Amino acid sequence: MRMMAADDLLETTRDSKFDLVTYLRSKQQLCEEALEKALPIQYPETIYEAMRYSLLSGGKRLRPVLCLATCEMLGGIIDIAMPTACALEMIHTMSLIHDDLPAMDNDDYRRGNMTNHKIYGEDIAILAGDGLLAYAFEHIAMQTENVPPQRILQVIAKLGRAVGAAGLVGGQVVDLESEGKSDISLKTLNYIHKHKTGALLEISVLSGGILAGATQENLERLSTYAQNIGLAFQIIDDILDITATQERLGKSIGKDQQAKKVTYPSLWGIKKSQELAEELVAEACSKLEIFGVKAQPLLALAYFIISRDH
Amino acid sequence: MRMMAADDLLETTRDSKFDLVTYLRSKQQLCEEALEKALPIQYPETIYEAMRYSLLSGGKRLRPVLCLATCEMLGGIIDIAMPTACALEMIHTMSLIHDDLPAMDNDDYRRGNMTNHKIYGEDIAILAGDGLLAYAFEHIAMQTENVPPQRILQVIAKLGRAVGAAGLVGGQVVDLESEGKSDISLKTLNYIHKHKTGALLEISVLSGGILAGATQENLERLSTYAQNIGLAFQIIDDILDITATQERLGKSIGKDQQAKKVTYPSLWGIKKSQELAEELVAEACSKLEIFGVKAQPLLALAYFIISRDH
Repeated sequence: MRMMAADDLLETTRDSKFDLVTYLRSKQQLCEEALEKALPIQYPETIYEAMRYSLLSGGKRLRPVLCLATCEMLGGIIDIAMPTACALEMIHTMSLIHDDLPAMDNDDYRRGNMTNHKIYGEDIAILAGDGLLAYAFEHIAMQTENVPPQRILQVIAKLGRAVGAAGLVGGQVVDLESEGKSDISLKTLNYIHKHKTGALLEISVLSGGILAGATQENLERLSTYAQNIGLAFQIIDDILDITATQERLGKSIGKDQQAKKVTYPSLWGIKKSQELAEELVAEACSKLEIFGVKAQPLLALAYFIISRDH
Repeated sequence: MRMMAADDLLETTRDSKFDLVTYLRSKQQLCEEALEKALPIQYPETIYEAMRYSLLSGGKRLRPVLCLATCEMLGGIIDIAMPTACALEMIHTMSLIHDDLPAMDNDDYRRGNMTNHKIYGEDIAILAGDGLLAYAFEHIAMQTENVPPQRILQVIAKLGRAVGAAGLVGGQVVDLESEGKSDISLKTLNYIHKHKTGALLEISVLSGGILAGATQENLERLSTYAQNIGLAFQIIDDILDITATQERLGKSIGKDQQAKKVTYPSLWGIKKSQELAEELVAEACSKLEIFGVKAQPLLALAYFIISRDH
């Protein structure tokens, strides 16, 4: 099968006059409003402020947008997916807060701001993460409307799996265990990224499909799309850690090299890594051909992942 | 309304030949088996071992037993409540692991064993908590059978609320903020315990009722029962912190006094606190009269809470 190159994809996107920037801005705006409303400050204020500090600190809202875009592609209206979209961002935020803790990556900056524990202390940061994780599930179960309950349960089950030891947490553990080792195998590297980044991106896409009532066949297409862009996303992340400036990225950079971490560019070099990311995205997009023009947002998002510079 | 004294209650329990010890042992045994099966070790082993270390370290299994007992009282079979019962213990365990962290209570012992982070390190302990929390929701959503999905969603929503900033996490935050202050109001003390201990005990009871299809009226009875035994449980905990030996309690004791923490016995003395706990339990039990002989396990459990010495 001929892989569509990133340039072809960009051309396709341009040809169709699909404007990703406007699309992203409008979807991000909807997410910001929903997130702002989802978590009003109440007593005890400290914990809500800490949760909101990290949750509402900008960010690309990639996971919520993937969820909403997939739901729409499958013929659902975005209202049915918005609680799940918000929950995905809550969980992503939880993982960042806990990752940044001194006992983990010990990061002082995130998205250009001080990390949660630098502002609120480690104890509150741990609890803010726990609170966001628990609230994510409450929010989906409480707020999702006009969707058969069986589908909501499926989303909750898959989301729990994507976050736990079989997903994000498991990836994080293997990542921690690999620290300081310069002989990490490609298999281990793939495991880390499939779980640490990939699992949540996959459920972001899948959940939109499940809520909209996608068939099993289409869910499998969505899985492949999501797994590929997840891996591409991580490869680009590794490249950016080498090439981007701290100002642009908004977080500490060069940490991988300092930690002598095995990454895709350290194994293959930057050029081959970039090419691989492009191939992965092209294959991802080929899976969505069947959805025709409705797939434009997801195609453009895939391209966005490999062309982003922060 | 005349409150039933604890002695009357004990007598009732004795008269009816209900054997709580045997009941508890058999239900605890079922929970141990279900918990053991729920979380088999797989790759990456470290995180599963860490999760299992704390989850399978004994304990009274009070929350699962409350859930199973309530389900049976309402006419449900325990199989329908077992995944939720296990999830309650996973969440309780998560809260203990995170509470014990150096950034929080900094405890070295729990249930007579080293705390999770003393064995696995802080990073893994944080992740083990996250993994247990996420898995709890996955487990309920995946494993609950023969229950209308709407009820399962209700359990998930209420459980998420009981754990998050509106529940356990919120109680923990106010507790942290109250540390070292000797002028905590009774209102604040009540808030802490209603949320830190009470919320999870309440959903333990309620979830059993919801899964069994309890009416709204009965759910309200169950709420009062649970709130009362939750508060009684905390009062007894505070008393035990003063009177019990470390060996018997299996965790560091006298910490409240060392930390000059305001507790019920510090406000009212041990004797009055014990009486209040007994009154709360008596009122709790009066709410279950309508269930007749079927309420025996919950009545006996309530009594167990105020008479336990560890």
